[in-house]
Amino acid sequence: MSLLKRAEQALTAHFEKAAGVGAPPRLVAAMRHAVFSGGARIRPQLCMAVAAACGDNAPNLTDASAVSLELMHCASLVHDDMPAFDNADWRRGRPSVHKAFSEPLALLAGDGLIVMAYRVMLQTGTPHAERLVALMNNLTDGVGLPDGIVAGQAWECETSADLGQYQRAKTGALFVSATRAGALSCGHAPEPWTPLGAFLGEAYQVADDIRDVIADAASLGKPVGQDALHARPSSAQTLGLEGAIAYFDQLIEQAAASIPACSHRDMLCLLVQHEAERLVPKALCEGYFKAHALDAKSPIRSAA
Amino acid sequence: MSLLKRAEQALTAHFEKAAGVGAPPRLVAAMRHAVFSGGARIRPQLCMAVAAACGDNAPNLTDASAVSLELMHCASLVHDDMPAFDNADWRRGRPSVHKAFSEPLALLAGDGLIVMAYRVMLQTGTPHAERLVALMNNLTDGVGLPDGIVAGQAWECETSADLGQYQRAKTGALFVSATRAGALSCGHAPEPWTPLGAFLGEAYQVADDIRDVIADAASLGKPVGQDALHARPSSAQTLGLEGAIAYFDQLIEQAAASIPACSHRDMLCLLVQHEAERLVPKALCEGYFKAHALDAKSPIRSAA
Repeated sequence: MSLLKRAEQALTAHFEKAAGVGAPPRLVAAMRHAVFSGGARIRPQLCMAVAAACGDNAPNLTDASAVSLELMHCASLVHDDMPAFDNADWRRGRPSVHKAFSEPLALLAGDGLIVMAYRVMLQTGTPHAERLVALMNNLTDGVGLPDGIVAGQAWECETSADLGQYQRAKTGALFVSATRAGALSCGHAPEPWTPLGAFLGEAYQVADDIRDVIADAASLGKPVGQDALHARPSSAQTLGLEGAIAYFDQLIEQAAASIPACSHRDMLCLLVQHEAERLVPKALCEGYFKAHALDAKSPIRSAA
Repeated sequence: MSLLKRAEQALTAHFEKAAGVGAPPRLVAAMRHAVFSGGARIRPQLCMAVAAACGDNAPNLTDASAVSLELMHCASLVHDDMPAFDNADWRRGRPSVHKAFSEPLALLAGDGLIVMAYRVMLQTGTPHAERLVALMNNLTDGVGLPDGIVAGQAWECETSADLGQYQRAKTGALFVSATRAGALSCGHAPEPWTPLGAFLGEAYQVADDIRDVIADAASLGKPVGQDALHARPSSAQTLGLEGAIAYFDQLIEQAAASIPACSHRDMLCLLVQHEAERLVPKALCEGYFKAHALDAKSPIRSAA
């Protein structure tokens, strides 16, 4: 079974169980809309891939960890899309939750998904109580204060913020949680897997900045040009477009190089390269430079 | 040390530790504004009082449970006050979080407090791993799907809702979590303490409905008349004001009667009676009926 399929199955099973019986139907529908909307499931896949490299000796714990990471990610998207932040009407080519349901339900759906992420962990029971607590701490590191994605988003509300710290928290934190969760699910030390999550997370943020400039809304499934519009820190603004692409390539190389020696190293490298191309397709970059008549003296993307 | 003082001290200590170092300062300030604003701390006090009745043999766990309940309560107030819901500019006599900071920071402060509630539990470590997991499940029951306070709030977004189910979830759920948490912190079975939380929680909701009609904004510290304004289900609307007051008295009596036989029964009964008077002061009811020239044929509040 592919990692993506395993992630989808785990999400479906855990969501149903954690939602329980008798919850307000529109709230459940709003949460479902947020979660089952064609996301790439990269955080769950990363968690599962690292767990496979570590022996995956407690697959139920791996699945729950993968699901809880994705639920946190979805919660952050729901709240980020709201009028108080990005005021984005579209997400993944569909109406965002507050457009499809309402602002109150979007607010509650995000809250409900955060709580559900913990429920998913807790409903694995206590055959591995120590691992479970470590995993929930790791999940909390990725989301809460001082350096999780909630803190990352909050840096946008400060008068000054360090771009690196902002990006590490806003996107990197949950990627770090994902790779570490894969190891922790198996009772392994998480530290060797921290750099993979950190490099990939930063690469994702840089890719997001790049696509906000060069993609069109239809292919991205959400509005573009948001960073300039909201005066948000962006590596495409800071480094220039070519600089940002070069930096992205460098981060992907560092991510692949950081993978510890293990039986699944090749599979993990492939996953990283595959994601790099999915995130910042070479054809998209070349098309953009051509259309904007920029002289591509230097190769736009170094060969992977 | 009084329960209130113990609750305040635990809140301060846990908040600082859980906030960590290096978080965005305005986010931390917004969260602090939400938590340290003169709340009555009734949920933590309830948890601690029940724990005392059960021997309080793991006071660190009791403190963490009490704090996590209050953080969840504060998170719900921050989000409920936002323009998407009550659009309330005031809370406890001070500007609400979105007025004092901003809507984005209020949204993130609520998210941050939910996550912090779990962090507070997790940072107790694993000397009592089984109790810890049971307590986190119990906390999640009070907040999440299908019957927690997030679900309760979401019933306001449905076209039809059962008043009892709505009130049980909106307010009762976290009171039930509070009394159960007191028992669970000591390794005791939580079931005998469920009715106390349930009766008190319903009494609180009814009291809220009553005060929304008879109190003035200055003494309440927030706007009044909100239920009618937002067409929310309210027992004062359904039962009439006198009926709601009689129902409140009945719930308080049932709460006191439900307290299991234990060495601290008298202290718990006193806490319940004290809260009843704080919530719906007899003088306030009498003053209201007098001012509105209602003929108080029947005693407005039965003698406690």
